[in-house]
Amino acid sequence: MVIVMEETATPEQISSVIDKLVRLGFDVHRSTGVVHTVLGAVGGRIIDHRDIELLDGVKEVLRISAPYKLASRAFKPEGTRIKIKDVTIGGTDVVMMAGPCTVESRDQVMTIAEVVSRNGASVLRGGAFKPRTSPYSFQGLGEEGLKYLKQAADRFDMLVVSEVMEPSQIPLFIRYVDILQIGARNMQNFNLLREVGRLDKPILLKRGPSATIEETLLAAEYIMSGGNHDIMICERGIRTFEPYLRNTFDISAIPVFKKLSHLPVVADPSHATGRRDKVPPVAQAAVAAGADGLLIEVHNDPENALCDGAQSLLPEQFEQLTARLRLIAQAVDRRMSSGVAEASLSK
Amino acid sequence: MVIVMEETATPEQISSVIDKLVRLGFDVHRSTGVVHTVLGAVGGRIIDHRDIELLDGVKEVLRISAPYKLASRAFKPEGTRIKIKDVTIGGTDVVMMAGPCTVESRDQVMTIAEVVSRNGASVLRGGAFKPRTSPYSFQGLGEEGLKYLKQAADRFDMLVVSEVMEPSQIPLFIRYVDILQIGARNMQNFNLLREVGRLDKPILLKRGPSATIEETLLAAEYIMSGGNHDIMICERGIRTFEPYLRNTFDISAIPVFKKLSHLPVVADPSHATGRRDKVPPVAQAAVAAGADGLLIEVHNDPENALCDGAQSLLPEQFEQLTARLRLIAQAVDRRMSSGVAEASLSK
Amino acid sequence: MVIVMEETATPEQISSVIDKLVRLGFDVHRSTGVVHTVLGAVGGRIIDHRDIELLDGVKEVLRISAPYKLASRAFKPEGTRIKIKDVTIGGTDVVMMAGPCTVESRDQVMTIAEVVSRNGASVLRGGAFKPRTSPYSFQGLGEEGLKYLKQAADRFDMLVVSEVMEPSQIPLFIRYVDILQIGARNMQNFNLLREVGRLDKPILLKRGPSATIEETLLAAEYIMSGGNHDIMICERGIRTFEPYLRNTFDISAIPVFKKLSHLPVVADPSHATGRRDKVPPVAQAAVAAGADGLLIEVHNDPENALCDGAQSLLPEQFEQLTARLRLIAQAVDRRMSSGVAEASLSK
Amino acid sequence: MVIVMEETATPEQISSVIDKLVRLGFDVHRSTGVVHTVLGAVGGRIIDHRDIELLDGVKEVLRISAPYKLASRAFKPEGTRIKIKDVTIGGTDVVMMAGPCTVESRDQVMTIAEVVSRNGASVLRGGAFKPRTSPYSFQGLGEEGLKYLKQAADRFDMLVVSEVMEPSQIPLFIRYVDILQIGARNMQNFNLLREVGRLDKPILLKRGPSATIEETLLAAEYIMSGGNHDIMICERGIRTFEPYLRNTFDISAIPVFKKLSHLPVVADPSHATGRRDKVPPVAQAAVAAGADGLLIEVHNDPENALCDGAQSLLPEQFEQLTARLRLIAQAVDRRMSSGVAEASLSK
Repeated sequence: MVIVMEETATPEQISSVIDKLVRLGFDVHRSTGVVHTVLGAVGGRIIDHRDIELLDGVKEVLRISAPYKLASRAFKPEGTRIKIKDVTIGGTDVVMMAGPCTVESRDQVMTIAEVVSRNGASVLRGGAFKPRTSPYSFQGLGEEGLKYLKQAADRFDMLVVSEVMEPSQIPLFIRYVDILQIGARNMQNFNLLREVGRLDKPILLKRGPSATIEETLLAAEYIMSGGNHDIMICERGIRTFEPYLRNTFDISAIPVFKKLSHLPVVADPSHATGRRDKVPPVAQAAVAAGADGLLIEVHNDPENALCDGAQSLLPEQFEQLTARLRLIAQAVDRRMSSGVAEASLSK
Repeated sequence: MVIVMEETATPEQISSVIDKLVRLGFDVHRSTGVVHTVLGAVGGRIIDHRDIELLDGVKEVLRISAPYKLASRAFKPEGTRIKIKDVTIGGTDVVMMAGPCTVESRDQVMTIAEVVSRNGASVLRGGAFKPRTSPYSFQGLGEEGLKYLKQAADRFDMLVVSEVMEPSQIPLFIRYVDILQIGARNMQNFNLLREVGRLDKPILLKRGPSATIEETLLAAEYIMSGGNHDIMICERGIRTFEPYLRNTFDISAIPVFKKLSHLPVVADPSHATGRRDKVPPVAQAAVAAGADGLLIEVHNDPENALCDGAQSLLPEQFEQLTARLRLIAQAVDRRMSSGVAEASLSK
Repeated sequence: MVIVMEETATPEQISSVIDKLVRLGFDVHRSTGVVHTVLGAVGGRIIDHRDIELLDGVKEVLRISAPYKLASRAFKPEGTRIKIKDVTIGGTDVVMMAGPCTVESRDQVMTIAEVVSRNGASVLRGGAFKPRTSPYSFQGLGEEGLKYLKQAADRFDMLVVSEVMEPSQIPLFIRYVDILQIGARNMQNFNLLREVGRLDKPILLKRGPSATIEETLLAAEYIMSGGNHDIMICERGIRTFEPYLRNTFDISAIPVFKKLSHLPVVADPSHATGRRDKVPPVAQAAVAAGADGLLIEVHNDPENALCDGAQSLLPEQFEQLTARLRLIAQAVDRRMSSGVAEASLSK
Repeated sequence: MVIVMEETATPEQISSVIDKLVRLGFDVHRSTGVVHTVLGAVGGRIIDHRDIELLDGVKEVLRISAPYKLASRAFKPEGTRIKIKDVTIGGTDVVMMAGPCTVESRDQVMTIAEVVSRNGASVLRGGAFKPRTSPYSFQGLGEEGLKYLKQAADRFDMLVVSEVMEPSQIPLFIRYVDILQIGARNMQNFNLLREVGRLDKPILLKRGPSATIEETLLAAEYIMSGGNHDIMICERGIRTFEPYLRNTFDISAIPVFKKLSHLPVVADPSHATGRRDKVPPVAQAAVAAGADGLLIEVHNDPENALCDGAQSLLPEQFEQLTARLRLIAQAVDRRMSSGVAEASLSK
């Protein structure tokens, strides 16, 4: 922590700040410049820097950022690779996670799983619990939905990712899913983060719509401090003044996350844009910018989907998209994963 | 819903949109302008307007906003007054809710309750459960904290408001508190909203840092649809590009909420600014702009507070502030409530 | 400047950064912590801190903020008072500046000047050049408009403030106006800032819709570095995700500007809200939060105004507002100025 | 325009709104729903919709968006192709525009022009007038800078793009440059827009940091209404709450601009990110998302650049980037333009 004193700070004010820092256990180095006196404070207990900022004569407090350690790139410079069965997230392959917004029936999940698997998806996504804006809307199939996901994933040699909403649902989820998703609204639900930090299941952590990159990494750190280091960060758009689409996809967050952290980064263009016709360009951009995976909603009958049909790709659109993605991945020295099925065959 | 067709829309595209709307149960009125064909659609089932927006030839869909009904001003033009014992929120009085960020001990709560009560606060605030950014920070006293709050409130004839974090805590809260607070991060935690909607306790609902005014009223509507109509909306700052303070307090949201809705509006300048020296000007502004109540953090020893000391007022600052607020309230034809204690005495 | 090295920085990388800093003329103090090596660099020439940030092994560069000096509170701790004839801006009085959005005719200006003067306004505002969004809209009366403003101001013993759009208009403006306004869109038009910096006329500088508080003070610094120190900062709302009103008025910017700088602060609730019914609550809030002046649009016939009628107060609304403002100003130990006319009489 | 009346609107209020609309020349269609009365108003003169919104009993006014016509996709469904000598912007080729931030000397421009031309750039960029944040910084070479740009461009068979700051500079610019750039801060400088609207030189119009997509298209419309239809829109990042990089590049704005308008879209990753290491991923993303061109800063000696060295690519980085872009362009059925030089040779 570096404390910059006001030009007009009196010697008494400076001494008083130093005394306070020493009492808090800091080593203080004083440097007297032409304009400002600057105090460097190291060691000491973790404190709220605003407490120092409010002292008389203090101009500002510069904090060395990134109080995250476990999530920082320095902790694991070579990058984290999360291996689940035949799938590796964070390696050379760009992993496709696809499926319906919400599980509606066994048939629906099977149909969509077949489509996405055939086009290279190795992880099946789908919502089982959907607390919705309107209390009168469909709220999800619950455990039944998770079962259908697992059955479909097993048949097509895929993994399952699904969103867990609260700690009480965890025991259920670990029976059916391979990756637990923490939704954007829950990114700072510390009870939930603490609980999933104790699991040995990988976590897909979505950035909140008003969370900074640093806050997102701090949420990852919170999980990791519990022992679970298999975290993927998911960029899904932030809230800005631009109203045309639901969110503004923060494309440069992908290389920034990759620089600051060793964790794999996944992009969710479906929620970012909220409109089917904007999903392919943003998906393509995400791979071109270095994403390790994509999370995409696909529906065989979006017009009658019970949830977010407008942002679900049709099967043929998904197929066209994946064809393009294969070329883009190559252009950036990556490879679109070809699905667990194929991977198994090639063993 | 009004559907504006592209200038270049073909007759087939227009017919196809009309057919779809009719199938969904809408009455459709077509009006052919010089430039655009415009379709008015009334009745019909609740649909995702994006599904129409994506149809060929559609330029845009104009939605009649405010799908909230119970929370709208039209539902109760005279305004909601929430009466709890001797306190009325939403009437002529501006109600002061004050206390520590978090309950640290019985003594601390008693000391602060005495201070704020003496200066006109009629509601005692305090956190009992504090899931914190760092897993190593103090996490709150839990039920013990709620007990201390109730004891202090009873002694000084005050009410208690405290934040409930998840549905499982509700039974505990209803034994000790008069007003349940829903935190900004939980504003769209629909499980929690549903549960508090079944209670007959008033709710203080905080606007999320990236929630629009409309979304905040929709969250209130969600609670109200369960039967609980005693909701206060709390403005506590939104996230913007301006970094100097923690949040940007949206002062004009106060008159906007009052126009759009009949619910009382409370302002929280402590969380909005995050700095003690900025709390008084923003508190004064909030009352001048028409707030029905204030939520303010006060600590007798902020330097050693276990949580957010930097944004807690000192007792003497609180006293000075309330003296000013009394004059400002009068200027806008309101009155700072003088506390339950005095109200009781004057009966 | 403080340079924080990565945990993993090699001795060579550290030496290389030090060498570079020394070459740039900095004195470098190295402090080796348990985790990071931290370099303090003082003196040296002004550089782009990003150049250091990009060096190998550098984690981040902490900059001592506020490269503004002339505009900083430390430069003039007692605060700037701008005196123009009988009006002082930045003293005890809160100065009311009011008038039409745009000058439409001599009669219109006279009528409105009479109304606002009678209610205590001491500065008459009005636009003479109005380059508008639509090339087909009314573009202002130009010099004729400035003349009418001056005639009306002279008759009612007021001052004139009007917006100058580009350097070539300055000679014209200094003949007619007492305060030159720099519009929000021109806040970083450095050519214009440089030119008004050479004048000895006070400047009202509007914060840009996406400008931070620091950037606004840097723009003031730019003007001041030319020699003109009579600057007022004007808060008029920033752009955020909240769509209900045109802008989000940043109420806490008022006390923040007052703390960081000695310059007077004026609030413009008309442009911030864009709606007549929201102007009074925000104006009241601004005075309660410590504004030194207000800039308010008033029109005697807003329905037929050529510009922004929707945000102009009616004469009777303006009268009610000023009555309230007088009480609020007293509550915060200020006084609404009573107009030049009255001030003259009382001499 | 569609006017939605309040549920509680009286028959008198409704009549009064209708009367006002009729007086303004609108045809009004009234439709009485179960909840709301809705009025459709067509024809009539251009009005400020807020004037209607403020009438008693009005709940809200829905505006048919996009008052732009000339810039809309419907006006030219096949898309605009701007042809300048051998270069076509808006066709199959993705056009590379590259060069230094600012022109420093004849040698510097020649060196960089050679590098970027060799790697396929067909347009040379460079600033000649650089009004800077600090009045003490280098302000550009002025006309001399434009001359050097033209000499270098001529030698390597390139075009020139450079930013014009104010109307008085136009005569100078048209002698030396092929494309006039309107900077982000000038996007709503209507005087400047009007003047360039009268030219027959193509314009590169940068989106302002707080401008919506719609406002950007309205600025383009403003230029086009003067007769100049050769406009390129340039996405260069918007201001959001995320502080890590200078701006947030709005990747989905690319497909949105392409859908709403027929104008070509160019991306500027240098200004969006402000850091050399983030330029390539964002440039790659922009091409993958459908950009028609890129604007990239390159410097042979960025460490000693007089301006924005931190965001300039080194020659070898530029070469690597263009190699990747060629593959990505193919993946989306485009082609990186290979430079005028090569184009000329192959004729």
